[in-house]
Amino acid sequence: MATDSHHSLGGRELPSRDGCSFRVWAPTVERMQLHVVDPIDRLFTMERDEDGYHSLIIEGLTSGARYFYRLPNGNERPDPASQSQPEGVHGASEIIRTDFEWHDEEWRGIPLPDSIFYELHVGTFTDEGTFEAVIPHLDELRELGVTAIELMPVAQFPGSRNWGYDGAYPYAAQNSYGGADGLRHLVDACHTRGLAVVLDVVYNHLGPEGNYLGEFAPYFTDRYKTPWGVALNFDGPQSDHVRRYFIDNAIVWLDQFHIDALRLDAVHAIVDHTARPFLEELADAVHELSRSNGKSKFTIAESDLNDPRLIRPTEKGGYGLDSQWCDDFHHVLHVLLTGEQRGYYAGYQGVEQLALTLKSGFLFTGQYSTYRQRRYGAKTGDLPGWKFVVCSQNHDQVGNRMTGDRLAAQLSFPALKLTAGITLLSPFLPLLFMGEEYGETAPFRYFTSHSDEPLIEAVRRGRAEEFAAFTWDGEIPDPHAESTFEASRLNRTAAPAPEQKALRATYREMIHLRKTLNPFRDFDLANVEVVTFASERVLMMRRHSQGDEALVVASFSSDPIVFHAAIASSWHRRFDSESPQWLGTGSTLPETLLPGELQTTLAPWHFVVYAKAK
Amino acid sequence: MATDSHHSLGGRELPSRDGCSFRVWAPTVERMQLHVVDPIDRLFTMERDEDGYHSLIIEGLTSGARYFYRLPNGNERPDPASQSQPEGVHGASEIIRTDFEWHDEEWRGIPLPDSIFYELHVGTFTDEGTFEAVIPHLDELRELGVTAIELMPVAQFPGSRNWGYDGAYPYAAQNSYGGADGLRHLVDACHTRGLAVVLDVVYNHLGPEGNYLGEFAPYFTDRYKTPWGVALNFDGPQSDHVRRYFIDNAIVWLDQFHIDALRLDAVHAIVDHTARPFLEELADAVHELSRSNGKSKFTIAESDLNDPRLIRPTEKGGYGLDSQWCDDFHHVLHVLLTGEQRGYYAGYQGVEQLALTLKSGFLFTGQYSTYRQRRYGAKTGDLPGWKFVVCSQNHDQVGNRMTGDRLAAQLSFPALKLTAGITLLSPFLPLLFMGEEYGETAPFRYFTSHSDEPLIEAVRRGRAEEFAAFTWDGEIPDPHAESTFEASRLNRTAAPAPEQKALRATYREMIHLRKTLNPFRDFDLANVEVVTFASERVLMMRRHSQGDEALVVASFSSDPIVFHAAIASSWHRRFDSESPQWLGTGSTLPETLLPGELQTTLAPWHFVVYAKAK
Repeated sequence: MATDSHHSLGGRELPSRDGCSFRVWAPTVERMQLHVVDPIDRLFTMERDEDGYHSLIIEGLTSGARYFYRLPNGNERPDPASQSQPEGVHGASEIIRTDFEWHDEEWRGIPLPDSIFYELHVGTFTDEGTFEAVIPHLDELRELGVTAIELMPVAQFPGSRNWGYDGAYPYAAQNSYGGADGLRHLVDACHTRGLAVVLDVVYNHLGPEGNYLGEFAPYFTDRYKTPWGVALNFDGPQSDHVRRYFIDNAIVWLDQFHIDALRLDAVHAIVDHTARPFLEELADAVHELSRSNGKSKFTIAESDLNDPRLIRPTEKGGYGLDSQWCDDFHHVLHVLLTGEQRGYYAGYQGVEQLALTLKSGFLFTGQYSTYRQRRYGAKTGDLPGWKFVVCSQNHDQVGNRMTGDRLAAQLSFPALKLTAGITLLSPFLPLLFMGEEYGETAPFRYFTSHSDEPLIEAVRRGRAEEFAAFTWDGEIPDPHAESTFEASRLNRTAAPAPEQKALRATYREMIHLRKTLNPFRDFDLANVEVVTFASERVLMMRRHSQGDEALVVASFSSDPIVFHAAIASSWHRRFDSESPQWLGTGSTLPETLLPGELQTTLAPWHFVVYAKAK
Repeated sequence: MATDSHHSLGGRELPSRDGCSFRVWAPTVERMQLHVVDPIDRLFTMERDEDGYHSLIIEGLTSGARYFYRLPNGNERPDPASQSQPEGVHGASEIIRTDFEWHDEEWRGIPLPDSIFYELHVGTFTDEGTFEAVIPHLDELRELGVTAIELMPVAQFPGSRNWGYDGAYPYAAQNSYGGADGLRHLVDACHTRGLAVVLDVVYNHLGPEGNYLGEFAPYFTDRYKTPWGVALNFDGPQSDHVRRYFIDNAIVWLDQFHIDALRLDAVHAIVDHTARPFLEELADAVHELSRSNGKSKFTIAESDLNDPRLIRPTEKGGYGLDSQWCDDFHHVLHVLLTGEQRGYYAGYQGVEQLALTLKSGFLFTGQYSTYRQRRYGAKTGDLPGWKFVVCSQNHDQVGNRMTGDRLAAQLSFPALKLTAGITLLSPFLPLLFMGEEYGETAPFRYFTSHSDEPLIEAVRRGRAEEFAAFTWDGEIPDPHAESTFEASRLNRTAAPAPEQKALRATYREMIHLRKTLNPFRDFDLANVEVVTFASERVLMMRRHSQGDEALVVASFSSDPIVFHAAIASSWHRRFDSESPQWLGTGSTLPETLLPGELQTTLAPWHFVVYAKAK
């Protein structure tokens, strides 16, 4: 961490042999008190500097000690920069050890273009729901071929059941997951197995319960709103300190916790009209850290703007974020697979749209969007494919469905194989959602465990209103019910069904092809050609790289479909979803394609890969 | 105007020989009625298209006819795109002639870097307060050397006394100024004299009185606020049509009224989170018009953001606006001249800051601003000097003072000459405020003439609150009082005082030097060197261009000051503010500077220019 970290951390500093130093930003407070509640019970008065940071060093205090800050009105509040909340969001902050024994000295990270992400929710990924419990599964993930696990947010949230977007202590790893030490163990175990770790961080709002930051300083502003409550103050008076609080947070995760990359939640809700946007400053700080410690460190934005400015380099007027999630890919694929057209799926339809998306990253680059009732997005220019992260499922796309049902509960087995192929062989960075690879059928539902009854009711009501227009047999799952959380846990049976095994093998094979065939490692979108056939039910994607070529044929038809194409050279089949090896029907395409007219029948959701070496 | 103008104008179309066609956007209205009130009294039902535009062609209606739109609730409202409001903002809209006889066929505009702007307020520039009355003064402005008049907003506002920022009909030229025909006459007269016309347009809000747009369509949004009321909807549902309304407005002024450039008021209050910002779209449309008709057409932003993104070309990730106002130059100069430090002048001080501004356009390029309580601005990189418009006075800087006092009422005669010199020989585009050139002593005050009593009171109260912290002998001028307006009229005496004549001659000479000495025509800020001397009271600016050089020496001291400099080559004096020619004291610097040590005494506010040809 940078040498000015004490100043900028904004909160408590790490304990050293000589004592423990505390620091908190509260510019309108003249005299801040620190209340140590364990192992002693004693009040200390802090020293204030001109920027409104209050600090104090206490000798002899060791890890395990607990404390609050006492505000002038007598309120006792946890440390805004607490690194441990052993009793949850309302309880005392805890001083924790930092002398973790790392085993990842050799680890340098993974180049971003090599990334294949695996998103997981710590609480429901295993029966135990802890960081430690993830570790025994890392070998199977490595064997699958993913290169990084991506943790849904772990910042301390209220209770023990939450997606993580209600975090109130950005610096504290969730107590029920195993806290800071548990997270360090998991990261260390990943790195020693060659896996990177991406952490989802929420810099657009703080959770509604246990969030006392506003009592300390102008972290928030009423000039703007977010869908989840009061907006953070990134451009008003004193916003420099608010930015520091979050940028230092990023640096703490990346440096002290050895996290490899940050997934920045919903950056469109970060309202910031400055000439030097917070996101640009954050990306610069991360890249500076990456340069100074010689490790690959990245920022990946979730954005609802389809704005290439976010991911363009700063020298081209961009914000310099490294990559961003691309919802268009998901939406057009989802509509092709399910035929759904409700809500934000409006306006997505047809293989032609998928072809356009494969060529440019976004589908909407300025066209009219029915859902948004305006033109949407901007052209991506020559941005390479690794600037876009795509998926067929993720926590939002599954969990924000009324019942949280996954594609495996909706689609046929051949369609699931096609889904794996088109996502993993796209010219973008693929992301899998935990359990997707073997067709997990447990839902992933929206769950919370607030302690505030009006809030519990408000969340319930919000959920009910969101789906009021839908008809469904049964109740809308209660977010607060423990059963909603339990139902979302992966089933992961000891004896998977044959189709589950074959699906996992398909995912593994797609990842293998992605890693080993040169054309799939070429991210220049100018080297991607996509055509559609057969009334827009069949997509053919040709990718080339320095003479090597790969050809993907994908049918988005639920019926067999006749397919004609003019073949100009010889191709060798590398994958056929209908081959018995993948539990197909055997109605495969030829092992070798020779120049001339090809006429064949594609099975429903047929997916085939051919290759040609130079 | 573009061929799709009918569709996009959003309002009434121009009358043709065959009739007059009307069009208005009102997407929630099923059946819009047009009420012609003069010369007949008759209701017509309009035809609605799928986007919610209602249209109708009426045969035989000629200019002079008056009409309202009648909404389903019975309200009769003027046309949102009215081009004439002869009875003011609440009255009927009028159909006007468009067959104006232009005399400016040869006019191609002026290259932006050649611009010297002269800002004027039509209502107070002359006793008559009309467009026509400006015309007799154009020759004296041309003789002064300015290249463009810049009109404060002329869109129809309530009453007859207003700065123009309360305009409610963006397409209608103010009736009390002489309406559309008067404006065309003025533009035509300018062009035939070689003067360009810049028009100030307000695309960030609409005036509070007579603004009925919200009854027609979602022009406004409550997602954001502006300091002047409800924000315009540039990024929400149906915002494409709102954008069209304003972009077409820009095109109408530039194309049908032959305006050369638009000054975009307070663009920081245009809140727009799209990937394709409204401002970028607007700039593109203006440049497209410029290319297609072969005339120079520009956009110049007023911005409070110090954000170079606005004025960078789109290929470098900018919005592509041509130039922007630079308040930093004004503020640092004002503080140097007056010593004021209140309000937004906080944090400005010292000749060193002026030097930094002269080198980079903005002073604040990321430093902490006391006034804003945060870091402010971003680096301007290699942007040329013509990307920045500077002034020592403008309507805001004068008029937003409690009593509207100009520099001429505050400064000594030598300081006024220095002010002229440093502004006009800066590497930026200079703007003069009407009357500044001869030291007009009438104030320019804030005035309005609303008809709504609570609004009148609210404006009064707002003004009083703004200056509550100030002490002043006398009342704060009442914005609504006619006397406040009358006091703001230029005095322009037939027999100007000797100092007024000499000041005007100084302005004229500075403009002459700017136009004729090559170094003053070179906008590459890398060719500007600025050093400060004598405890930061003296600034020396050296500008060079392909071997030609110019040297400016400026004292910001109110006392005589001893000045040493090492001179490396020979220089010829081109201007000395203390020369008797400019009504100085005669304590001039040498006619020729020879290599060696120069030691001399600068008079208070001394300003000298030397030149050297290659």
